[in-house]
Amino acid sequence: MALVEALVLERQHVLSLRPIELPMEVGPADVKIAVHTVGICGSDVHYYTHGRIGPFVVEAPMVLGHEASGTIVEVGAEVSRLKVGDRVCMEPGIPDPTSKASRLGMYNVDPDVRFWATPPVHGCLTPHVVHPADYTYRLPDNVSFAEGAMVEPFAVGMQAATKARITPGDVAVVLGAGPIGVMVALAALGGGCSSVIVADLVDEKLAIAAQYPGISTVNITKDSLEDAVAVVTHGWGVDVVFECSGAAKAFESVMTLPRPGGCVVIVGLPVEPVPFDVSLASVKELRFETVFRYAHQYERAIALFASDKVDLKPLVSESFAFKDSIAAFDRAVEARPTDVKLQIVME
Amino acid sequence: MALVEALVLERQHVLSLRPIELPMEVGPADVKIAVHTVGICGSDVHYYTHGRIGPFVVEAPMVLGHEASGTIVEVGAEVSRLKVGDRVCMEPGIPDPTSKASRLGMYNVDPDVRFWATPPVHGCLTPHVVHPADYTYRLPDNVSFAEGAMVEPFAVGMQAATKARITPGDVAVVLGAGPIGVMVALAALGGGCSSVIVADLVDEKLAIAAQYPGISTVNITKDSLEDAVAVVTHGWGVDVVFECSGAAKAFESVMTLPRPGGCVVIVGLPVEPVPFDVSLASVKELRFETVFRYAHQYERAIALFASDKVDLKPLVSESFAFKDSIAAFDRAVEARPTDVKLQIVME
Amino acid sequence: MALVEALVLERQHVLSLRPIELPMEVGPADVKIAVHTVGICGSDVHYYTHGRIGPFVVEAPMVLGHEASGTIVEVGAEVSRLKVGDRVCMEPGIPDPTSKASRLGMYNVDPDVRFWATPPVHGCLTPHVVHPADYTYRLPDNVSFAEGAMVEPFAVGMQAATKARITPGDVAVVLGAGPIGVMVALAALGGGCSSVIVADLVDEKLAIAAQYPGISTVNITKDSLEDAVAVVTHGWGVDVVFECSGAAKAFESVMTLPRPGGCVVIVGLPVEPVPFDVSLASVKELRFETVFRYAHQYERAIALFASDKVDLKPLVSESFAFKDSIAAFDRAVEARPTDVKLQIVME
Amino acid sequence: MALVEALVLERQHVLSLRPIELPMEVGPADVKIAVHTVGICGSDVHYYTHGRIGPFVVEAPMVLGHEASGTIVEVGAEVSRLKVGDRVCMEPGIPDPTSKASRLGMYNVDPDVRFWATPPVHGCLTPHVVHPADYTYRLPDNVSFAEGAMVEPFAVGMQAATKARITPGDVAVVLGAGPIGVMVALAALGGGCSSVIVADLVDEKLAIAAQYPGISTVNITKDSLEDAVAVVTHGWGVDVVFECSGAAKAFESVMTLPRPGGCVVIVGLPVEPVPFDVSLASVKELRFETVFRYAHQYERAIALFASDKVDLKPLVSESFAFKDSIAAFDRAVEARPTDVKLQIVME
Repeated sequence: MALVEALVLERQHVLSLRPIELPMEVGPADVKIAVHTVGICGSDVHYYTHGRIGPFVVEAPMVLGHEASGTIVEVGAEVSRLKVGDRVCMEPGIPDPTSKASRLGMYNVDPDVRFWATPPVHGCLTPHVVHPADYTYRLPDNVSFAEGAMVEPFAVGMQAATKARITPGDVAVVLGAGPIGVMVALAALGGGCSSVIVADLVDEKLAIAAQYPGISTVNITKDSLEDAVAVVTHGWGVDVVFECSGAAKAFESVMTLPRPGGCVVIVGLPVEPVPFDVSLASVKELRFETVFRYAHQYERAIALFASDKVDLKPLVSESFAFKDSIAAFDRAVEARPTDVKLQIVME
Repeated sequence: MALVEALVLERQHVLSLRPIELPMEVGPADVKIAVHTVGICGSDVHYYTHGRIGPFVVEAPMVLGHEASGTIVEVGAEVSRLKVGDRVCMEPGIPDPTSKASRLGMYNVDPDVRFWATPPVHGCLTPHVVHPADYTYRLPDNVSFAEGAMVEPFAVGMQAATKARITPGDVAVVLGAGPIGVMVALAALGGGCSSVIVADLVDEKLAIAAQYPGISTVNITKDSLEDAVAVVTHGWGVDVVFECSGAAKAFESVMTLPRPGGCVVIVGLPVEPVPFDVSLASVKELRFETVFRYAHQYERAIALFASDKVDLKPLVSESFAFKDSIAAFDRAVEARPTDVKLQIVME
Repeated sequence: MALVEALVLERQHVLSLRPIELPMEVGPADVKIAVHTVGICGSDVHYYTHGRIGPFVVEAPMVLGHEASGTIVEVGAEVSRLKVGDRVCMEPGIPDPTSKASRLGMYNVDPDVRFWATPPVHGCLTPHVVHPADYTYRLPDNVSFAEGAMVEPFAVGMQAATKARITPGDVAVVLGAGPIGVMVALAALGGGCSSVIVADLVDEKLAIAAQYPGISTVNITKDSLEDAVAVVTHGWGVDVVFECSGAAKAFESVMTLPRPGGCVVIVGLPVEPVPFDVSLASVKELRFETVFRYAHQYERAIALFASDKVDLKPLVSESFAFKDSIAAFDRAVEARPTDVKLQIVME
Repeated sequence: MALVEALVLERQHVLSLRPIELPMEVGPADVKIAVHTVGICGSDVHYYTHGRIGPFVVEAPMVLGHEASGTIVEVGAEVSRLKVGDRVCMEPGIPDPTSKASRLGMYNVDPDVRFWATPPVHGCLTPHVVHPADYTYRLPDNVSFAEGAMVEPFAVGMQAATKARITPGDVAVVLGAGPIGVMVALAALGGGCSSVIVADLVDEKLAIAAQYPGISTVNITKDSLEDAVAVVTHGWGVDVVFECSGAAKAFESVMTLPRPGGCVVIVGLPVEPVPFDVSLASVKELRFETVFRYAHQYERAIALFASDKVDLKPLVSESFAFKDSIAAFDRAVEARPTDVKLQIVME
């Protein structure tokens, strides 16, 4: 253990930038990383404002942050795949490789995953972290630290695109133009869709999505999404609907927008059970997929960044210095409609 | 057209056995069949008792019946695959082969399907029917007419088993031990599951399912289905849950019973939207499939009967002569708990 | 029938531009199209130079051409989806919609497909053609006639990409940089791959592929493809190998390049059986897919063109007037290394 | 280490039943098992007769045997899933759970797997073995030790059936009626096929397969397999061909027997590359799958035995006492046509 500076959530509503004891021993399969950039996620903000997410309650001071990139400064004795000086990003959830879910290749649904900044596990908003080499991924030269810190949220989009089992040229709708909605839309395009219609209530959010080729937008307070889908698909319906709004009302649209035999990937998490019309789903034989974080997506996401098929740089709305972390979180709480991703740069 | 005897639903609550004008011209791609056995389906009974199913309203006298087998008595000029004397069963839904859904191989979701005994299309409770040869299937010698008339409801089970994408040796739960639940359980076993747990509230229904090897049963008014699943799967959860009860409350069980990464096939059709807990589904990354009738299942079902992998003969609860058709329907309305399938034999 | 001008292959080695009797009756489900652009395919050239392709022998004068776009000038009585003036492209193979393969959604493997410019069926190098509306597809305003005539060869690439079942972010190798190899590489990128390595023996061909983002190239007479794959995939191997060279020797590389559990899509057609090393394939549990033309790919291909995800315009090497068709074919016979696609423009 | 009695392959052609030093320490995640039954596999025999299999050479004395069942006599400190007295069977290949292949759920293609009786790893023909609990599986009361020792070879059949992606009711051909061919046929039936045609040259082998319902047989020295397939499938072709003969000539049949869009699973391992006719494969768009041992199949296999869907008891041709192990191997070398599985019982 070592006493190191970190952004600590003391309890609901109270953040400190202060020293805290963190483990800094580098095990044989670990690497030590000088953290460079950390993105602020909605879940970090939620712990700040609510002190809990569902069953996960902040009962002791906890370091926040789980979307991170940096540079390796030390490697464990058995690590051969990485070396000091490598620019990397880190996957925040570490499963037990011998669990049944892990052995089946679905480590994301291993109930014993330890995940940064999920109580009681500390996050990475601190200058150095020790991490298993197996969950640390080298960044190609043409992928920046800012992009490296975006791999984590983009991996959620990749998981959704993977679950959709996209057939090349599919047309998709994304419901919700928040950060995850945009990530999902870009993962769907990078993952084989020919075009994506993004729907939301807020023009500023839609404008950010609309800057990407392949994305068209519909403000559903003004225009009919059904009509837009009918035009694009000649009345047939879209191949995939990605539900990213978390709104109960969206579960009406997920029944009407897909084509017969189409797919709905549910990404948003409504707090309460939503009404689900089995008859509407059945008459089209719709398939519904759900996602929980991601598995095996980091290298795939990095490859898409490296080949310029996916460019997330326009989504970094503002960067803050580490010393201004609390201000950064307060800005995240009062997010502007144009804010997609706020990041903290450590040095 | 010809004036022929038939079981006619005149309007809600009123059945007649009387002559009616039906088309009897045999087109070049058609066959004419002397009907032998017709099963009574819940939908036939529902038209009788309610005069409608959802948007399908009985507005004119309609011949009932769509689960049929018989013997070919005439073949059209272009028919080479079948000949007079062939024992056959008939698929009651005829799609437009040039529709987009049909061309994609999903003719069951073609909205223009014409389906026997679905208003305004007449059914087959009449001594002879004319049918497209492409939707008429020869019965092997060791498959009886009674079994032939069971292919239709069993095809629903096959569609459910197919949608589940069973991996050999999967363990499944079937919620609901009605006729469709039992068909689904047998299709799942024939289709690769190692064992199936069937759950219901009524002991008599469960007793019928329990006579089959590979099926165990749980009366959920007395025993815990969760416990039964935990024992069989060592706490991991089942690979597939087939929801065949149509009960809203079942949508709680479909979240708790599957293993991480498992599948739920929704077969039952609740009248109202059901509460759907996205969080519970997501934490296990469950997949949900829906079914609408069936496509390409007749030959597969017949092959399973022919090889004795699936034996539906114990499910025929009682047979009635055609002249007693109205009594048969009245018995179906007042079904006994042990009634699975009532059939009408034409001759 | 009507006497119309056309490019006629009289017999091996002999082309004429002359009038010929062709059917010009517009049936109720047909459209009549003023042909605008027709691409020259290797199979057209092969019939010219060899008089046959495998079992298909030119035994009577046959109009060549099957990669076509144009403008609708007449529609049949039952056609509602298209109208006069629509810019369209045409799928050259017309299956029997009631065949078993068609009903299963695989019309491309229907042995009764009638395919343009495959003996004894005439092709489309003539000013007007009559075609089933179901196999005629509208071009969006931003897709040119030249691109419209490229949908056909690109559909082969789409079929290969579809068969690969690409997971978003996959890395692929394409063996062979001929027209089909390039089409496959672009379909794989549009269909979800993060990057593609194209390998060939000829620098000029590789240079054309290399102009596309996401594609890197290896001249295997100079550099090691194994090394290139090892660098890109950190020694793991590629997810997919598309074999487009048709060379027997390539069947060694298809075993060594993929990752464990990877996939090989065989597109090229070697004339003789190739040596297949089962042990090498098995130790990695490789999957092998084959393709035959394409099914359901036209609308998907057009959608990728329309959204600018795939741009084939740089692949049109030269255009010829219809009156110069024979010169165009002679140029195709003596193709330059930089020739990808030669096209004939009718007006 | 401890000095224990074992069946030792000293070198090619030389077996001894003698004491040898084997590790007997029970680690925290291990169990110690009193071995009960060990099946003799073709690979054991091959090491005896040839001293090697491909790159695996017997360079030091090695204990044989890898198909085993037994009773737990000691459990490691961290083992909770198993207890002393449990009847179990053991998976002979132990992967590195942190390898890339293992993390993706494909531990069988992890090149670092340590596999019993594959040089230089000792096998299990010895009274006690220490094994990781994660690869030790409890046998239900109704599954005998003899059956438990058959899980290993049957798991190969399960892997093949899984790779086929059987749709319920599929019809399959198995080429080759050796032990693996029969296991594959039974796994295919248990895994969803309606019927299987097994083909071989030797009547005695076919007779063993033919005793199972759902299996029909063809002696291809006497009858036409093509004709048999045509009769069963009405000229369409089978859904799956399992190639288990390892004969080069079989690669002609794998092209002609499947239906359009069908699948070939290659299980047998020809020593030399086989001729592969791409054109024949492509015109039907066949898919080819290969298998390497198995992954995640033990629990599935045991479940099929427990529910009596698969009964391997008739395949045990003869049992030998441990003291007669060398005689058992000599009998295996001179196998009778009716020999399927020879087993050694330890006590």
